[in-house]
Amino acid sequence: MNLRMIFYSLGKTSLALAALLVLPMITSAVTQDGCVWAFVFTISIAVAIGVALMLIFKPRHTAMFSREGFVLVSLVWIYFSLVGALPFVISGAIPNYIDAFFETVSGVTTTGASILTGDQIEAFPKGLLFWRSFTHWVGGMGIIVFVMVFATGSQDRSMHILRAEMPGPTVDKLVPRVRDTAKMLYLIYIGMTALLVVLLLCGGMPFFDSLLHAFGTAGTGGFGIKADSIASYSPYCQWVITIFMLLFGVNFNVYCLMALKRFKTAVKSQEVMLYLGIVIVSIGTVTANLFGTLGYTQNFGDALRHASFQTVSFMTTTGYTTIPGYTNINFWPELSKWILLLLMFVGGCAGSTAGGLKVSRIAILGSGVKREIRRLLHPRNANVVKFEGKVVTNETLYNVFSYFVVYVFILICIFVILCFDPNPKLDFVSKITATAACFNNIGPAYGEVVGGYFVYSQFSKVVLSIAMLLGRLEIFPLLLFVNPSTWKKQ
Amino acid sequence: MNLRMIFYSLGKTSLALAALLVLPMITSAVTQDGCVWAFVFTISIAVAIGVALMLIFKPRHTAMFSREGFVLVSLVWIYFSLVGALPFVISGAIPNYIDAFFETVSGVTTTGASILTGDQIEAFPKGLLFWRSFTHWVGGMGIIVFVMVFATGSQDRSMHILRAEMPGPTVDKLVPRVRDTAKMLYLIYIGMTALLVVLLLCGGMPFFDSLLHAFGTAGTGGFGIKADSIASYSPYCQWVITIFMLLFGVNFNVYCLMALKRFKTAVKSQEVMLYLGIVIVSIGTVTANLFGTLGYTQNFGDALRHASFQTVSFMTTTGYTTIPGYTNINFWPELSKWILLLLMFVGGCAGSTAGGLKVSRIAILGSGVKREIRRLLHPRNANVVKFEGKVVTNETLYNVFSYFVVYVFILICIFVILCFDPNPKLDFVSKITATAACFNNIGPAYGEVVGGYFVYSQFSKVVLSIAMLLGRLEIFPLLLFVNPSTWKKQ
Repeated sequence: MNLRMIFYSLGKTSLALAALLVLPMITSAVTQDGCVWAFVFTISIAVAIGVALMLIFKPRHTAMFSREGFVLVSLVWIYFSLVGALPFVISGAIPNYIDAFFETVSGVTTTGASILTGDQIEAFPKGLLFWRSFTHWVGGMGIIVFVMVFATGSQDRSMHILRAEMPGPTVDKLVPRVRDTAKMLYLIYIGMTALLVVLLLCGGMPFFDSLLHAFGTAGTGGFGIKADSIASYSPYCQWVITIFMLLFGVNFNVYCLMALKRFKTAVKSQEVMLYLGIVIVSIGTVTANLFGTLGYTQNFGDALRHASFQTVSFMTTTGYTTIPGYTNINFWPELSKWILLLLMFVGGCAGSTAGGLKVSRIAILGSGVKREIRRLLHPRNANVVKFEGKVVTNETLYNVFSYFVVYVFILICIFVILCFDPNPKLDFVSKITATAACFNNIGPAYGEVVGGYFVYSQFSKVVLSIAMLLGRLEIFPLLLFVNPSTWKKQ
Repeated sequence: MNLRMIFYSLGKTSLALAALLVLPMITSAVTQDGCVWAFVFTISIAVAIGVALMLIFKPRHTAMFSREGFVLVSLVWIYFSLVGALPFVISGAIPNYIDAFFETVSGVTTTGASILTGDQIEAFPKGLLFWRSFTHWVGGMGIIVFVMVFATGSQDRSMHILRAEMPGPTVDKLVPRVRDTAKMLYLIYIGMTALLVVLLLCGGMPFFDSLLHAFGTAGTGGFGIKADSIASYSPYCQWVITIFMLLFGVNFNVYCLMALKRFKTAVKSQEVMLYLGIVIVSIGTVTANLFGTLGYTQNFGDALRHASFQTVSFMTTTGYTTIPGYTNINFWPELSKWILLLLMFVGGCAGSTAGGLKVSRIAILGSGVKREIRRLLHPRNANVVKFEGKVVTNETLYNVFSYFVVYVFILICIFVILCFDPNPKLDFVSKITATAACFNNIGPAYGEVVGGYFVYSQFSKVVLSIAMLLGRLEIFPLLLFVNPSTWKKQ
């Protein structure tokens, strides 16, 4: 393990964090929200730590294998959360450090779970609101580049876990150098965000709101700036956000292929077809279930709009909502509520900003199950499973199966730990949906948690923060990170 | 597929069913409950069908491969439920056939979920009560013999799914012939049941009650004969039942080994150790959580008794309860409730009468996960996983993983279908616990279902019946059964 190189890279990341903090600092200065010094102070700390790390850990050789990458990515996400939480604490907007840490983890993991109440959000300093949403955008870009460039580009065998989810048309064969792929991804991501901002501005949404909602949509994060999320904006804006949430849940390979003008390959993506299929069927069911049952869904158009928004929001693990402020998701019909909960586990496509299990994994799990049944009937046949036109190897199937087992195992562990939370108001639904919403990086949960995560104890908040990190980094990097033998000198 | 042989064997089974029905018929005659003719009529039908099947499908050759066995075992369980439901309907005790079918499936799958209310159970005809509990006992014996003799004895490759759960010390190498193993299992099962009856009689429980509760305990079924299950019996009786539920959740291999005087091998069983470990830790946690929180758990001894009984009852998927009639499981503290729910999924040991995932599968899943993490760190090492002193092969790991995936997949499907139930009182907890309780063959669920399954629609009852069958037969036999190409002439 090249620990020097890991900490040297972390130093570089710290400088990047300082640079990113300049934008919210400017916002603070412009809006005169009184938080400028909080940002200045945090930037100084980030620069100091960055320079110190780079000086102390000047690497002797720069070789990085994927296990170093795994450890680095865990460190980067944790470091971002630890330091990124400082402006909230220093400014006094979120006085408790654990609360601020939770909020920042929720930001960089593109979860969108908040410990703030609706009133607190509306009165929040503008610069901090900017930073809160900006972490979504940065986190979303980070995960795409990590998964697409780093994990797919490496030929190292130990990448098998992350590579297992990328059976689609990979870009690394098309674009010769890793750096070029990263640049293309940055451009697509920035371009799509800019387009969304423009479209929201056209709908009459103020610039600040448009920008922050675009950040939240691009990262499939979901931090809002109003007590009732997107509910008070026009149906046009809601539809625009629905469509962009859907677009940001698509495998970014597909956009790369389109940019390279390989439209035929792009359109053939089995994962995207399945993703759209699940979305359409779910929207249909939820619309039928919702139509006429609530005060604001008496009209078919309204029912369709709310159903589409909520379905896409949960499936892409964004977490925005259009439910009017006087009610909440707990009042939705049972069937819709639990379909939406299941979609939280499905998540978007692999190689997108969405969380969850990912559609490709679900598809491979399904094929694996089909194969098992066929194997019972015809034990001597070959029983080849295909996905995206390629044969799924036994190794890939095994990897996806084992990912699923670990995923369920961690889900249960988090739930059991939450069961020890002393708040008696937190029932089964509040606990299971909070676990699902954090681990799959959605954000909003049902039951008592519907108003925010402040109902949980500080200990539970730390556990849920770990859940968000585990979900975002697809479990294994973080498991490697906490494994003691990772840190032994070799 | 040797269909003639399958139907011929089903004919034989029908005659066996007729023979089994003689006992409840005698009970009806002795207690003069007016149901004798219902049994006589059902016995006639069973004999007629049995003879007809054996005459029509006289097999040309008797070769049976494991896939024939899978289909036969599914057919037998379904046939038993279809015909075994008749006495309830004919006598008028359960006028609706679907209700009677649900009750009988619940019996033969050793689930113990009932559509009867407490009052109905106490007023139920004695002969039918006997038959209801007797189905548990027969189903329990059936599944042990099926899994232990049939599945383990076969060397056919397509048995891999069921064999995967039997990594422990197998008996087939010790006892030369399959028939001898079966005989030994029968004797142990009958002997343990008889001992339990005697011990309950010593505690002052009436003979009829002792016999029926012994049936329910041996099969880890859980049909009671009182509105409040075991609550009104003495603490002595409750402790005796706790211990026997625990004993019937142990791998019957261990008892076979003991009968063969191979005590050392028997005691070393890693699965049994883990099983007892989980039970002890859970009892400790539930006792601590329960002590002092409820009217009947103010005393430490009482808290320990209720905690032990309920933990063992759910872990072994029996489903009896000692909670006094004026309250129910919904009033238990949250932590205990959800620990018990998780234990429902664990289940007992493989090769016992218990349902659930089984401890050995959980152990192998755990080892597999550990191996994945080690593989990340040291991709070039061999990373051997062991269980019960033997190396777990990649194939076994893959089989257990895929079983788990199918298990979760079916669990979700059942839950989603239940979501369509029109009863608005059935909330998330009622649906998820009913799914878990039926699929894992426990019986009692939380929420609205706590009083009985009559709250569900007829359609949901059919779905839950299928869930019980899927759980009992470990999924794959039934999937093979419904696969159209199984029935094609080959």
